[in-house]
Amino acid sequence: MATAVIFGAGVMGSATSFPLSDKGHSVRLVGTHLDGEIIGEVKARGYHPGLKKNLPAEVKAFQWTELDKAFHGADFILSGVNSHGVRWSAETLAKVLHKPLPIIAVTKGLEAAENGDLLALTTVYEKALATAGGPGCSVSAIGGPCIAAELAARGHSCVVFASEKGEISRWLADIFRTSYYHVWPSTEVYPLEIAAALKNAYTLPVGIARGQADQPGGEDSSGARMHNPAAAVFGQGVKEIKYLIRSCGFNDSFASSLPGAGDYYVTCAGGRNLRLGTLLGSGKSMAEAQKEMEGVTIESLSIIETMERALPGLLERQIVAMDRLPLLDYLIRTVREGSAGPLPFERFFPEIHF
Amino acid sequence: MATAVIFGAGVMGSATSFPLSDKGHSVRLVGTHLDGEIIGEVKARGYHPGLKKNLPAEVKAFQWTELDKAFHGADFILSGVNSHGVRWSAETLAKVLHKPLPIIAVTKGLEAAENGDLLALTTVYEKALATAGGPGCSVSAIGGPCIAAELAARGHSCVVFASEKGEISRWLADIFRTSYYHVWPSTEVYPLEIAAALKNAYTLPVGIARGQADQPGGEDSSGARMHNPAAAVFGQGVKEIKYLIRSCGFNDSFASSLPGAGDYYVTCAGGRNLRLGTLLGSGKSMAEAQKEMEGVTIESLSIIETMERALPGLLERQIVAMDRLPLLDYLIRTVREGSAGPLPFERFFPEIHF
Repeated sequence: MATAVIFGAGVMGSATSFPLSDKGHSVRLVGTHLDGEIIGEVKARGYHPGLKKNLPAEVKAFQWTELDKAFHGADFILSGVNSHGVRWSAETLAKVLHKPLPIIAVTKGLEAAENGDLLALTTVYEKALATAGGPGCSVSAIGGPCIAAELAARGHSCVVFASEKGEISRWLADIFRTSYYHVWPSTEVYPLEIAAALKNAYTLPVGIARGQADQPGGEDSSGARMHNPAAAVFGQGVKEIKYLIRSCGFNDSFASSLPGAGDYYVTCAGGRNLRLGTLLGSGKSMAEAQKEMEGVTIESLSIIETMERALPGLLERQIVAMDRLPLLDYLIRTVREGSAGPLPFERFFPEIHF
Repeated sequence: MATAVIFGAGVMGSATSFPLSDKGHSVRLVGTHLDGEIIGEVKARGYHPGLKKNLPAEVKAFQWTELDKAFHGADFILSGVNSHGVRWSAETLAKVLHKPLPIIAVTKGLEAAENGDLLALTTVYEKALATAGGPGCSVSAIGGPCIAAELAARGHSCVVFASEKGEISRWLADIFRTSYYHVWPSTEVYPLEIAAALKNAYTLPVGIARGQADQPGGEDSSGARMHNPAAAVFGQGVKEIKYLIRSCGFNDSFASSLPGAGDYYVTCAGGRNLRLGTLLGSGKSMAEAQKEMEGVTIESLSIIETMERALPGLLERQIVAMDRLPLLDYLIRTVREGSAGPLPFERFFPEIHF
């Protein structure tokens, strides 16, 4: 049995305490400086206010002020901080880790290098840790459709753990796997990270298609609900995710599997990215839509900004062609102009033409 | 401008009268012997009871007794009969067609040859027409997410027209294409037909996953709705559709595009196949579920039966391996046993293992 530290007490990180506890591991939930209240409630009565339920009784909670104690003797770390907290998190870990430990991150994210290359969050995390003087830890990624509340309800969830070091993802997969948390180990880190990040961005136009359908005149007198436009966007979205993974030189099979199509499907079933899209589609400006969703982090916007930064380099080196990315082009224009215009259906599926 | 005959007055066939009329073509809607009432209403007041709205004023309606007049001078035929009516339809067309005309079928379907090879409905249609002594017509297929009522509401719909004869699918695409009916021509008939047929079958387990989640104990006290299982099934479904297309020797790119993932997405948003799955997942037997849906044709069941007939030949010739098709295996057992057991999550994604 292993000793796990979950670093960050958000819903996704905290939900992993269920399979870990059920498997008999020793679990420590460690809050960041922003998680004081959550950790307080877990300490006081075992209740997690984000998940709206009690954590397994065996989970030990630690405040931000108890870091040394919390990390002492840990075998691995599950990083539950969000993508904006990766550098901060690396600096913190550099101080408390005295030897290399495997880290697995629930966070999804992409950054753009100067030349346009996409950088997976795992790479960014590893580099930030080294820069901060920490030990050389290997950071693994989790991908696949997994809503935290469902995992915490011990519902069936299927995910992929990816590490370039196969022995690490296999070891972690064996640690976490239960009868309801189905984990496949993989070495395909970049395809996983690209699919996981992009599916958030590509959920936005699915929401826009739905929102535009609810416009006056958009719904029909016969009661026809407009599923066709959202479905066409979904098809083109899968296509662009696949194209971007392959163009960047990686195996594109995840695009039509769990971390691509599967995760994209669940993201389009609800959540923040879909909601923002629906508001934009209903005619609200980006400023109005964001105001209506005040205080909510919307991952799709930072992914779109990353892709906008990456594109000049990718285009210049002829790694991608813009006519294969009509939705990405539309998303960048939507963010830049602050409102959603008509979806470019006629530009979809350019590779089908013959 | 062309003269189009829509043969069969069901909702999908009849809905194509909107783009055809908007494009200025002459449109004749011809009922089968089962469509007497529908054609009567269209003749009397232009109203289509299935679509719950008036057809374009220019559409001329013909009863089953007026076949010769209806087909006289036609340039092409849109076949709107369902998959069970293909042989009957071919025999009828053989009597009224005096020269080869392009036929485009909205119907989806697969049949299994003796050796297990999958036969596209277009091939079955062409052969049935020749067997019945008709002229040598080329039959094209339509694929992609297109709910009839939405097309009839002139909502954006994206579809692929496929014919092995490229000049025919290009000609037909140009005939139908409007500002809201986006049509891509293709020569990939079999990939289109396989994706279009299988997505119906693979919607059943998505429904089962949803139905099982609504079981007592399936939903959580915290209110967690169970999207993760359905999303994992969706991911594995796309994977198996892709695997079957590729294994049968065809280009698998449609699996992760409009006719695969896109159409699968919209089918999972509602409809008969999802409903049957949800009933099965809620614990009802196949007999009870079908009784509850009495009178409704459920395409997924005949596709699953076709795949059951095809599998022995495909396995014997090592064209497919059963461990790559856990959902299909589950679906065949579900139909055979008449009830839905636990979904085989642990058997999903066998190709990710390393």
